[in-house]
Amino acid sequence: MTQLVLASASPARLAVLRAAGVLPVVRVSGIDEDKIADELGPGAAPEKVVTVLAEAKAAEIVPGLAADGLTDVVVVGCDSMLLIDGELQGKPGSVDIARRRWAAMAGRSATLLTGHCVMRVIEGNIVRVASDHSATVVHFANPSTADLEAYLATGEPLQVAGAFTLDSLGGWFVEKIEGDPSSVIGIGLPLVRTLLERVGVSVSELWRTQSVL
Amino acid sequence: MTQLVLASASPARLAVLRAAGVLPVVRVSGIDEDKIADELGPGAAPEKVVTVLAEAKAAEIVPGLAADGLTDVVVVGCDSMLLIDGELQGKPGSVDIARRRWAAMAGRSATLLTGHCVMRVIEGNIVRVASDHSATVVHFANPSTADLEAYLATGEPLQVAGAFTLDSLGGWFVEKIEGDPSSVIGIGLPLVRTLLERVGVSVSELWRTQSVL
Repeated sequence: MTQLVLASASPARLAVLRAAGVLPVVRVSGIDEDKIADELGPGAAPEKVVTVLAEAKAAEIVPGLAADGLTDVVVVGCDSMLLIDGELQGKPGSVDIARRRWAAMAGRSATLLTGHCVMRVIEGNIVRVASDHSATVVHFANPSTADLEAYLATGEPLQVAGAFTLDSLGGWFVEKIEGDPSSVIGIGLPLVRTLLERVGVSVSELWRTQSVL
Repeated sequence: MTQLVLASASPARLAVLRAAGVLPVVRVSGIDEDKIADELGPGAAPEKVVTVLAEAKAAEIVPGLAADGLTDVVVVGCDSMLLIDGELQGKPGSVDIARRRWAAMAGRSATLLTGHCVMRVIEGNIVRVASDHSATVVHFANPSTADLEAYLATGEPLQVAGAFTLDSLGGWFVEKIEGDPSSVIGIGLPLVRTLLERVGVSVSELWRTQSVL
């Protein structure tokens, strides 16, 4: 059975994969994301940036796998970016900033760009690579003041890019999406499945369960 | 703190609510769904059917709440229907039927209709009622034969309407959606929030956590 190695520290990505039947090994890359983005130049398309960062994250962890006996694996690299009016949204970090973000984004939409890279490693060597991106539009609701203040008080939106989550309290305040919901949580399952096919792996080979009932 | 009573036996609905900060009391209604749908007549719009069934489920459990001391609550009734080409999709029940379903739906789309009814109960009496429906379009991928057979072998798609889930193995095979992802899993959070507002309750009053981090 082929082992999936997730090149990401994100608990949300891990949770999505587990719910979808895959128990990955986690290896976190230490790449300098800003440096790589800078090298692409200021005019680089965001779609290009997330894809190159996903590739860099996957590539960086491959050399360390052999020491752990992980010589026959698929490595998945991930990068996400949330844009409102073409502007990158980071983690707010404070209640005040999160409140201002929500004042600006309530009733409007954002675009979540997801880059993924899948590397097929056999006998310790990268034999095939596939990468691509997907885009999902997220339409935010207009929370009441009471609900928004309660949401900010939980701390949840402060630590996540775009000041919302889809799979937790923030789900009350996302009116609808156009695209892949798993990509909004952190890892785009249909995109990863397609990339796996391109490197010659069926996603079902990675499933740890033959009976989920 | 107001208590939410979920008038549904669905573990998926319960899981969505829990992830979104609400720990409901579960009470399952024993209404005769076919009889109610029949009374609406053969020409009844599916949107109307899911809404009326949600109302009937909520109404049916209210009289029994007082005996359990549940006199100040909001009751949420739910009904869902998946349509492909206007045709209602039930649970396949067998691998053969699920395989035929997927042969027909791969690469195509379905519409998930969700009806919800929220009843505000104070001192044992229904004081306000709000109900409505939402619609979400689900676009299916084209799984490879190997992946589809592996999926069927897990048993997962046999027991769910439409032969897929969004929040488990089926997530690999849903290309994208247009609408509310929580409604596809079982309960439409933004719709329930709006209905709660219409009966004078803020969703944040129902949250069992003030710190989720």
